[in-house]
Amino acid sequence: MSETIDQPATTGTTHGLRTILDNRGLLWLDLDDPMSHVLDDLAARYGFHELAVEDCRHREQLAKLDYYDDYSFIIINATHYTEKPCEVRINEIDVFIGSDYIVTVHYGESRAVNEIIKKSESNAKHFGRPDQILHAVIDIVVDRYLPTLDHIGDTIDSVEDDLLISPDATLLSTIFALKRGLLQFRRAVSSQRELLNMLIRDDTAFISEEMRIYFRDVYDHAVRAMDLIETYRDLLTGGLDIYLTQMANRTNDIVKGLTILATIMLPLTLVTGYFGMNFEYIPLLKHPNGIWYTTGVLLLITLAMLSFFKHKKWL
Amino acid sequence: MSETIDQPATTGTTHGLRTILDNRGLLWLDLDDPMSHVLDDLAARYGFHELAVEDCRHREQLAKLDYYDDYSFIIINATHYTEKPCEVRINEIDVFIGSDYIVTVHYGESRAVNEIIKKSESNAKHFGRPDQILHAVIDIVVDRYLPTLDHIGDTIDSVEDDLLISPDATLLSTIFALKRGLLQFRRAVSSQRELLNMLIRDDTAFISEEMRIYFRDVYDHAVRAMDLIETYRDLLTGGLDIYLTQMANRTNDIVKGLTILATIMLPLTLVTGYFGMNFEYIPLLKHPNGIWYTTGVLLLITLAMLSFFKHKKWL
Amino acid sequence: MSETIDQPATTGTTHGLRTILDNRGLLWLDLDDPMSHVLDDLAARYGFHELAVEDCRHREQLAKLDYYDDYSFIIINATHYTEKPCEVRINEIDVFIGSDYIVTVHYGESRAVNEIIKKSESNAKHFGRPDQILHAVIDIVVDRYLPTLDHIGDTIDSVEDDLLISPDATLLSTIFALKRGLLQFRRAVSSQRELLNMLIRDDTAFISEEMRIYFRDVYDHAVRAMDLIETYRDLLTGGLDIYLTQMANRTNDIVKGLTILATIMLPLTLVTGYFGMNFEYIPLLKHPNGIWYTTGVLLLITLAMLSFFKHKKWL
Amino acid sequence: MSETIDQPATTGTTHGLRTILDNRGLLWLDLDDPMSHVLDDLAARYGFHELAVEDCRHREQLAKLDYYDDYSFIIINATHYTEKPCEVRINEIDVFIGSDYIVTVHYGESRAVNEIIKKSESNAKHFGRPDQILHAVIDIVVDRYLPTLDHIGDTIDSVEDDLLISPDATLLSTIFALKRGLLQFRRAVSSQRELLNMLIRDDTAFISEEMRIYFRDVYDHAVRAMDLIETYRDLLTGGLDIYLTQMANRTNDIVKGLTILATIMLPLTLVTGYFGMNFEYIPLLKHPNGIWYTTGVLLLITLAMLSFFKHKKWL
Amino acid sequence: MSETIDQPATTGTTHGLRTILDNRGLLWLDLDDPMSHVLDDLAARYGFHELAVEDCRHREQLAKLDYYDDYSFIIINATHYTEKPCEVRINEIDVFIGSDYIVTVHYGESRAVNEIIKKSESNAKHFGRPDQILHAVIDIVVDRYLPTLDHIGDTIDSVEDDLLISPDATLLSTIFALKRGLLQFRRAVSSQRELLNMLIRDDTAFISEEMRIYFRDVYDHAVRAMDLIETYRDLLTGGLDIYLTQMANRTNDIVKGLTILATIMLPLTLVTGYFGMNFEYIPLLKHPNGIWYTTGVLLLITLAMLSFFKHKKWL
Repeated sequence: MSETIDQPATTGTTHGLRTILDNRGLLWLDLDDPMSHVLDDLAARYGFHELAVEDCRHREQLAKLDYYDDYSFIIINATHYTEKPCEVRINEIDVFIGSDYIVTVHYGESRAVNEIIKKSESNAKHFGRPDQILHAVIDIVVDRYLPTLDHIGDTIDSVEDDLLISPDATLLSTIFALKRGLLQFRRAVSSQRELLNMLIRDDTAFISEEMRIYFRDVYDHAVRAMDLIETYRDLLTGGLDIYLTQMANRTNDIVKGLTILATIMLPLTLVTGYFGMNFEYIPLLKHPNGIWYTTGVLLLITLAMLSFFKHKKWL
Repeated sequence: MSETIDQPATTGTTHGLRTILDNRGLLWLDLDDPMSHVLDDLAARYGFHELAVEDCRHREQLAKLDYYDDYSFIIINATHYTEKPCEVRINEIDVFIGSDYIVTVHYGESRAVNEIIKKSESNAKHFGRPDQILHAVIDIVVDRYLPTLDHIGDTIDSVEDDLLISPDATLLSTIFALKRGLLQFRRAVSSQRELLNMLIRDDTAFISEEMRIYFRDVYDHAVRAMDLIETYRDLLTGGLDIYLTQMANRTNDIVKGLTILATIMLPLTLVTGYFGMNFEYIPLLKHPNGIWYTTGVLLLITLAMLSFFKHKKWL
Repeated sequence: MSETIDQPATTGTTHGLRTILDNRGLLWLDLDDPMSHVLDDLAARYGFHELAVEDCRHREQLAKLDYYDDYSFIIINATHYTEKPCEVRINEIDVFIGSDYIVTVHYGESRAVNEIIKKSESNAKHFGRPDQILHAVIDIVVDRYLPTLDHIGDTIDSVEDDLLISPDATLLSTIFALKRGLLQFRRAVSSQRELLNMLIRDDTAFISEEMRIYFRDVYDHAVRAMDLIETYRDLLTGGLDIYLTQMANRTNDIVKGLTILATIMLPLTLVTGYFGMNFEYIPLLKHPNGIWYTTGVLLLITLAMLSFFKHKKWL
Repeated sequence: MSETIDQPATTGTTHGLRTILDNRGLLWLDLDDPMSHVLDDLAARYGFHELAVEDCRHREQLAKLDYYDDYSFIIINATHYTEKPCEVRINEIDVFIGSDYIVTVHYGESRAVNEIIKKSESNAKHFGRPDQILHAVIDIVVDRYLPTLDHIGDTIDSVEDDLLISPDATLLSTIFALKRGLLQFRRAVSSQRELLNMLIRDDTAFISEEMRIYFRDVYDHAVRAMDLIETYRDLLTGGLDIYLTQMANRTNDIVKGLTILATIMLPLTLVTGYFGMNFEYIPLLKHPNGIWYTTGVLLLITLAMLSFFKHKKWL
Repeated sequence: MSETIDQPATTGTTHGLRTILDNRGLLWLDLDDPMSHVLDDLAARYGFHELAVEDCRHREQLAKLDYYDDYSFIIINATHYTEKPCEVRINEIDVFIGSDYIVTVHYGESRAVNEIIKKSESNAKHFGRPDQILHAVIDIVVDRYLPTLDHIGDTIDSVEDDLLISPDATLLSTIFALKRGLLQFRRAVSSQRELLNMLIRDDTAFISEEMRIYFRDVYDHAVRAMDLIETYRDLLTGGLDIYLTQMANRTNDIVKGLTILATIMLPLTLVTGYFGMNFEYIPLLKHPNGIWYTTGVLLLITLAMLSFFKHKKWL
């Protein structure tokens, strides 16, 4: 099985600032190294606020939307899921969006950006305004949540099946890893959902009326993802309960086995001890069939005990 | 017992687009194959948004309501419950509703739609406007939640009784299956309730004032269904607690049994071991009644232990 | 102890429609059989909506308030508590209230209605308007919540005391029955509280300004009842925790007892086994006081073990 | 240690109605027996509503604020904490506040009222208006929450320390008593906080603008008390978890001890049993040093087992 | 490892009131002893409310913001974290902020204030208005939350790893100490976040429009800190679950070991007991190879048991 379902593209050499689109009414600049001085140059040219620039340079920020006078600053939370061990990391994409330009900033190559570049080549009319680019980026990022969740859901399913058939300590660590991964995922998705909520509620200038419906659709997907995350968290908690009750069952079974054994063996041993005493006279000792009578008694005790446990349904 | 209480009608041959009603002021079209190009034709004719069409083609969407200029798009969550194993699946019915037409879209035959067709034949006056059709569909879908819940409630009742009488590992898997089914059910009902809430709150043009009260009634039913789902989830969690405490009780009983046995047997064995030692002189050994005195002591010890446990109420 | 504290009056023969009051400005009709055609006649005369009539005919509806043009429809949740087993059932009273009439509908006799009839005979001036009747009915119904809760609270108290003194499996089923009863109770009270909240918030025509303060008082009582229900649920969950920790304590005690016994008996048995071996030469065997030396050693071992456990505070 | 930190003053003879202050613009009446007919006289004179009078006569009402036309009615929740067993009782103080008078009603003497009387003698200017008296009463009542909580917090601290050092069943009942006390406390404080919230939010005529800031300060204290109560409830739940894990640890240790003992003793006993068999020929039996060889083997087995457990870190 | 990551500066001699800045439009006074009469003098000069002065003199107040006519009073919650044992204490900084002055009050030296003094020397233009000073103080305080949380997060990580490898009772006390520390931390951060929320929402005069964006940035950091605290609390609860399931596993393993041993030893002991009885005739006793046959049987039983447990995967 492949270990990751959403590997970041190789982060070899960075190519610095690229002009991806430069049509009438739309300039799309892409920067894959927020640490470079190029970002300062851009900030100076467009008047980006120093706080926004700082945010670009911190990794793993949660999604957010800050309005400024001439532009808005958006942090998008792309997620990167690895299966073994289950971990969800946030790859942020920072976006500055103005009336006629959009600047995307990220560390190394970004799959989402690359995909859009490819799409925009074949379908130019859908990539004519900044808000269309923004929608495309968020859409790809959010669409990728659901296959990740399906993957997690499948893992949970198989873990639950295994728990009922053969509960095992390794399942425990899988459950806790999944819980942890979902916690990280939830933080990313929840902030992303809030961001989308702001985008469709606020009457922002930089999103055209016509595009709003598309953002609402992405919002629906984010809501569904959150919903699934909560459901999965409930299922994992349930899984832990299954494990604990299975362990309780098993302890009961083991202790039951020990009790059955002791209940049969101890009386038999007592009988042999009785006839092993060194009294001058013990009944049956001198009897030629004494040993057979005694052996019969031992067998009888055994059978009586076994049928008693059979009766109690312990066997 | 029948395994399903709400089986989908056989999904044999699809009949494509049907015109079910075509009165003055109401055209009702029904399509049972959202994948066919017919839907694209309809979308072109009525100007349905591409996102809505896409939603029709995805299965298991949650209920929602999207307003568009000339029409509204509604996803209704019909549920399909199977008992063994307890599972709740969503069969979505998609509705486009305009001022004088309604288009229903679903995969294969839909019981709800079929029932309404039958009703509309005998009672034409209640099916004269699009909002009446919409109400009829939602009403049937929501009305079917409660018998399903009653069924689940009965299962929970019998599981709880069994838990108190004879706790058993198979009850565990029933509890977890029910929990899981309720989680799925809750997702469907909760989104359906939100949809109904929007319908009765928003001052939508496509619902007449007179019909609003009927939608409010359906909303009440959805609220009651949600309420029952939460109650059942609480009961199932309680059921798990019963199971765990019963297991703890049982372990206690088993260990208690082992302890009683050991407490009686070990001292007796010690006595026989004592008189089994090979010392030249051990008191009583040469005494003709030694064995009887010793046997008496063994019986005394046994009785003393038994009355001790009787006193401690362990027997 | 009486098993029920709020028994429904005997539901022998129904007397159909009664005119209880017919003053200037107030007609109070009471119907004790919602299934009869009389209700249809009333609905036709006063223009009751078919949905409201349907609601009357379903039992165990949650409390609610629906406004119609000329009248309002209210479902009141009277509760009926039985102690063994703890169960709370909803006896709904349906009320149609207009500007100068009130119609109450219920299954069989209703204690609340009977009490008001008795009161109204002696105190006519407080029963001169429909909203006064409505208040009287709701007041009696809500006032009866608190003694029921006191009863439940007393049971919880005695269960908690028993849990600390002698935890017992029968206490478990009492706890779960109480939990279940409180869940049912909460549903009734919570919907009733919402109904009262609507009555005092909404500027409804059918409640006079002067009566509003009385409804606020009833609302306060319902809030207090909800508050107590939540507190009791917390206490019951705590009771379960007491039970589980007491079981853990007890298992510890039993296993401790077994360990003490085995720790004393097994070494003693080893010693007797040692001198029970059939070697030609074993020290002490031929010694005349060998048996006494050995017996002394056995006693010493026993005392050492006992003082060891004393030291460990296990005894 | 003193058992109570807030004992009610001795409730000997009641002195009925007292006129505490009678300045220009302020009449303060205090009544320590709500059952007496004096309250009815007052109600008649000032026009108090019958519902408010009834509330005075019920004990242990939750804090609330009811507006009437000419006056307001306020229930204040003083708390009375006893430590062993931890219990929090509500002593209500009822206040009628008008434009130029204030009437306080309580059962028996009230510490809060007595303290204010003393203060007002030395500092008349701060007790010139009804809202100043009201503030003084609430301030004293709320200020007394925090020392009570500090006391509870200290008890929780020492319980937690004891739990880690020597978990004990008596700690359990202390935890549950504290939980219960905090539940009662929370009800009182939470209603008091709501009351204060209403006082500072609503634009009530009977509180002067200048006093509002003082009520806000009291509100802050009530919020802090609620906050501490929630924190303590969390800590107590954590304490229960400590107890349960400590019990699990202890069971493990006991079972481990039993297992070590059995693992050493059972093989030794087997060896002695082997040489205790009555076969004509058993190797070593006739050997003069047989018993020493065997004894050596027994010691070797013991040492091997001990070093095995040492290796497993069980010793 | 250093024990504290945020030690308060040495609190040697206090220097009383300092004038840190006295530019046109900004007077910054700093007082490191709220108990001194200097504060009373200041209060008299600027008209500070007595309640605010009192708040300065209480330690460990939660963060809050009170508006007064000419100035505002703010309590800032700096935190002081010690690692062993994990504890979070609140060091409050009190701020009075007017149109052209700011007064900071704290106990002993404050690192935050010292840092700002240093910064303000090199960068005067960013410290020209009271709101800039206020921002600088809050910014430093909130920025210090995240390294503390990272530290706690690392501790949780290593605790979780240890729990899966070698669960140990000392890990338990670490978990509970962390839980407790997070509870204290949460109280501080949550009130600080509310304070910041008020600062950016309310249209307060003393914060310039231009600075508001900087306060929003600090607010984001506080929100992130709260978010992490909640995540860590979830992880710790999960850690406790790991511990409990590991203990259950371990008990199972120990009991399993005991059962295996007993299952092998008891039957062997029974056989030796059988041949240790003193009957005149027992088969094999007189047979020259009897002992070898018997020994063979003992070995066979042992092997059979071992392979049985191998088959059950207990070994």
